[in-house]
Order: sequence, then structure tokens, then C-alpha cells
Amino acid sequence: MDLISIVDYAGTFAFAISGIRLASAKNFDWFGAYVVGFVTAIGGGTTRDLLLDVTPFWMLQPSYIIVTGIALLVVILMGKRMTYFNNAFFIFDAIGLGLFVVVGVEKSMSAGFPVWVTVLMGMITGSVGGIIRDILINELPLIFRKDIYALACIFGGVIFYFCTLLHLPNEITQAISAASVILIRILAVKYHWSIPVLKNGENNNSEPN
Amino acid sequence: MDLISIVDYAGTFAFAISGIRLASAKNFDWFGAYVVGFVTAIGGGTTRDLLLDVTPFWMLQPSYIIVTGIALLVVILMGKRMTYFNNAFFIFDAIGLGLFVVVGVEKSMSAGFPVWVTVLMGMITGSVGGIIRDILINELPLIFRKDIYALACIFGGVIFYFCTLLHLPNEITQAISAASVILIRILAVKYHWSIPVLKNGENNNSEPN
Amino acid sequence: MDLISIVDYAGTFAFAISGIRLASAKNFDWFGAYVVGFVTAIGGGTTRDLLLDVTPFWMLQPSYIIVTGIALLVVILMGKRMTYFNNAFFIFDAIGLGLFVVVGVEKSMSAGFPVWVTVLMGMITGSVGGIIRDILINELPLIFRKDIYALACIFGGVIFYFCTLLHLPNEITQAISAASVILIRILAVKYHWSIPVLKNGENNNSEPN
Repeated sequence: MDLISIVDYAGTFAFAISGIRLASAKNFDWFGAYVVGFVTAIGGGTTRDLLLDVTPFWMLQPSYIIVTGIALLVVILMGKRMTYFNNAFFIFDAIGLGLFVVVGVEKSMSAGFPVWVTVLMGMITGSVGGIIRDILINELPLIFRKDIYALACIFGGVIFYFCTLLHLPNEITQAISAASVILIRILAVKYHWSIPVLKNGENNNSEPN
Repeated sequence: MDLISIVDYAGTFAFAISGIRLASAKNFDWFGAYVVGFVTAIGGGTTRDLLLDVTPFWMLQPSYIIVTGIALLVVILMGKRMTYFNNAFFIFDAIGLGLFVVVGVEKSMSAGFPVWVTVLMGMITGSVGGIIRDILINELPLIFRKDIYALACIFGGVIFYFCTLLHLPNEITQAISAASVILIRILAVKYHWSIPVLKNGENNNSEPN
Repeated sequence: MDLISIVDYAGTFAFAISGIRLASAKNFDWFGAYVVGFVTAIGGGTTRDLLLDVTPFWMLQPSYIIVTGIALLVVILMGKRMTYFNNAFFIFDAIGLGLFVVVGVEKSMSAGFPVWVTVLMGMITGSVGGIIRDILINELPLIFRKDIYALACIFGGVIFYFCTLLHLPNEITQAISAASVILIRILAVKYHWSIPVLKNGENNNSEPN
């Protein structure tokens, strides 16, 4: 098992944990929590693969299903003690996000798409899972209202592009891009960075549809 | 019209009825109710076909659109009297579920996917329609909180696999697999089987995203 | 830049504005509002392209991303004054809808699908973006409860088909079909046309799933 796989599993685990915990706050049963955890972990990459018209990555090896199962087991066994490890889960989540962005950018780059598409695919890979999670638990997507999340993905994608312009070795490019995503996430949460809220002072929208 | 087609239409009808009735409880107009009914009936198979990268089944023949139209007509004409037939609709729904699972397993098996993917595809075929229905009517997906539903699909998929291991004739395999789904559904509702609710005692989730 | 492109941009702009304004009423941040606007504008065409198994149209040229950015800028800069232009946005929205329907019908027709599929694809192209928008902002889809919207798309698709039966030149067919959608939308809003609400007098749905 190489480093990429370990990071991939850690990220999948952290994303699944986030889905399972939010589902548990809504009194989902074990199965429902498992599904929400799984969709949180694989939703972004699946959306990317459907858009790129390739077989969704998790249909090619069962590891994502197994890792989500382990995540469910951990949440069941640890119960309230989960909160002690919030910082660890956050770091896993940030690391996973960095890797997901890199995978999304590379996969769409090798499919021949232009730079702006690859940056978008990195963002979609990193953030759509959380959006589907929030739709399933019937909440406004958190990503649209809190912290810098999707912007960190976009930044990582742009960094990736500049590294390729400099003809850096692929491993270095991956590392720098992922690290920039992780760094921004950590800084954004630590210093409460956020994007301005959009206010147009209008509650009674008169749009016809 | 062969037996499979009749069962398929009965299942489509029952799934559409379930969507239309839940939409009517939210004061959707006729058209909205039709759309929710249609999506309930075809959402699972469409998701499966997109994941398998084949043309969605309902785009190949208009029968699913027509059956949903009949379902809408029935709900409009019968009004409150619908409740007298709840048991019949439940049986149709269970039969439809059994067939949908079998179709999902077979279609992904013939596309060359490994066993665990075919079992998942059976479950997706049977249960994603109801999840999309609940998202459209802005409710927490019922499937995650009540009865044994998706697990019945998984069980039917596993039974299908074991039947193929025994080299049973295809019709027998289909019948046993569908019957196991139907039986579990009926027993689960009759005896109020359910999956434990996940409680991690945490309402204020401190996940960063 | 030809006429079709101009109309396409105007429609994208109007759809994006509708998403951004509804997102702002939910206190989404700028980025969240951008995403909702973008998904409103491209959601219908993307669903159609996934169903037709072709590369989603917005991945082939960056103009949709740029137009959505302009829409966000306009909403930020104009604030409350947006309401003065509600009528203009409504007209843009209707014109965009007419074009989207025509594009959806033509694209699926040239992919070789039968008439009823092309009509559905026209409707999906025109209305799914608004449905995804309402799911993201956690509201019941407006389209299912108000005005004639999806029916206008279906009508336009049917008109398109009859024009091809008459062997009218392609430009004439496009114009008549789009105009019929626009006209119905305007009449529906002006005269408060609506579809009957479905009532089956049942609030406690006893469906098993």
C-alpha cells in the first residue's frame, strides 16, 4: 500500500465520519448513517467521473465501501468520546480534501480538458460530497455559508496548474497543490476566514419561477 | 405482454403512486405530482444506468411515462378512497421492489461488474427513487429512518449471487431473489423490524465543514 | 457573436440571477450564491447531456462561468435596486427558457431519439436547473406549485415537432417553438394561469416507504 492509497483512505475515512456524525444528529438508523457517510466520501468523485464520462472510481475496487464501514463502526463504538478527536478528524478531512483536489485535477487533465475545467473538477471532487450530504440530511449546504472550503479547492487547482507550467516533477506538483489546500483550510478555520455574505435586501423575491 | 413486463408495470405504478400521494400532501399541482411520481418510479434505475454508462431505460420506451400518467389519474379520481387500498399498494410496492432489485443486479452483472457492485446496483435500483422523492418534497429520506428497505434489496442481491453459484436456471434465480426481497419487506412491516438508530450523543457537531 | 449566442447568454444571465437572488435571501456567502446561480443556469442542460451521454455543454467553453460571474457582480453592485428590473429579468428568463427548450429538443433529436424523448429533454433542459436551485436552498421546488413553467416547455417541444412535420426551415421552426414558450410564460404570469392542486385529502400517508 503506497502513500497515495494511505492518504486516500484517511480522507475517505474523515469524509465518511463527517457524514455519519451529521446523520446521527438526525436520528438516522445505522444503515442510513452508512449511506450518508458513503455518499459524503464518494459523491464528489462520482459527480466528476459522471461529468468526465468514466466509470465511477468506487465501482472499481471495494476499499471505499470497507473504509466507510470502519468509519461507521468507529462512530458506534466511540459514541460521545468522538468529540475528543475533533481536531484529528479535521486534520484528516483537510488532508483528504487536498488529495481529492489533486486527484480531480489530474484525472480531468489526463482526459484532455482545458485548465479551467480541471480546476472546476478539483473543486467538484472536493466539495460536492459535502453538498449531497447536507441535502440528504435536509440542511442548507454548510459549504455555502461557512469557512473557506470550495475556494481552497480552487486555489489548490490553480497552484497545480502553475506547477505544471514550471515543469516541476509530478510528485512535487501533487505535494505542493495538496499542501496549499490543507494550509488554507487550517488557516481559514483557525482565523475564522470567511467570504462576505450576499445581501440584496430582498426577502420577497418576485421572480416568476 | 409477458410476466416480467406486467410485474414491471405494477412496480412502476406502485412507486409512482407513492410519489404522487406524498406530493399531494405538500399541495403540489398535478404536474408537480406527476413529476415526483415519475422520478420515484425511474430514479433508481436512472441512477444505475448513469453509473453503468448506458442509456436510461425509460428513454427507450414510453411505457413508464404512460403508467405514471395512469397512476396520477387514479389518485385524482379516487381521492380519499385511496386509503382503502393501502395494503394493495404496499404489496405492489414490495413486488416492484423485488423486480427492480433483480433487474439492477442482472444489468450490472451482464456489464461485467464484480459481485459487490451488482449487489449495490440492485439496492440503488430499488431505493434511490424513494430518496430523490423525499428530497423533492423536502423531507428527510424515509428509507434512512424506518423499516428495513435497502437492506431487503441487499439481501435479495446476495441471494441472487448464491443462486448463480449453484448454477440454478435464470428464471429460478430471478424468482427466488425477488421473492426474498418481497418476503423481507412484508415481514419487516408486519413485525416492525428496524435497524438501530445511531446515537453519538452529539448535537453540536464541531466538524469544520 | 451570432443571435443564438446572445440569446443563450441572456438566458444564462437571467437563470443565474434567479439563483443568486434566492441564495442571497438565505444568507449564502458570495461563493455559495455563485454556485447556486451557476447550477440554476446549467443544471438543466447538464442533466440532459448526462442522460444523452455527451460531454456537458458548459465544459466545452468558459462563457457560462463568466456570465454567471457577471450576474453575481450585478447583484452585489445593485443590491435593493434589483427589484426595479424584475420585469426585465422576467423577460430575459422567458426568452432564455424558450431557447433552452429549443436547444434541448434539437440536441436529443440529432442524437436520434424519438419525439416523446425530445419533448422531455426540452422540458428537462428548461426546468431542472430551477429544481436543483430549490433543493440547494432547501425549499419545495417552486416549479411544482406555481404558474405554468414545465408545461410551457412541453408545449414548445410539441410545436417544434409539428413544425418539423411541416418541413419548415430550421430557423423558422426554432423561432416558432421558442416564441410559443415565451408567449405561454408571459400569458401564464399575466393572467395567473395555474394547474389544479392535487388533493387526496390524506395527510397521514400510510405508505410503507
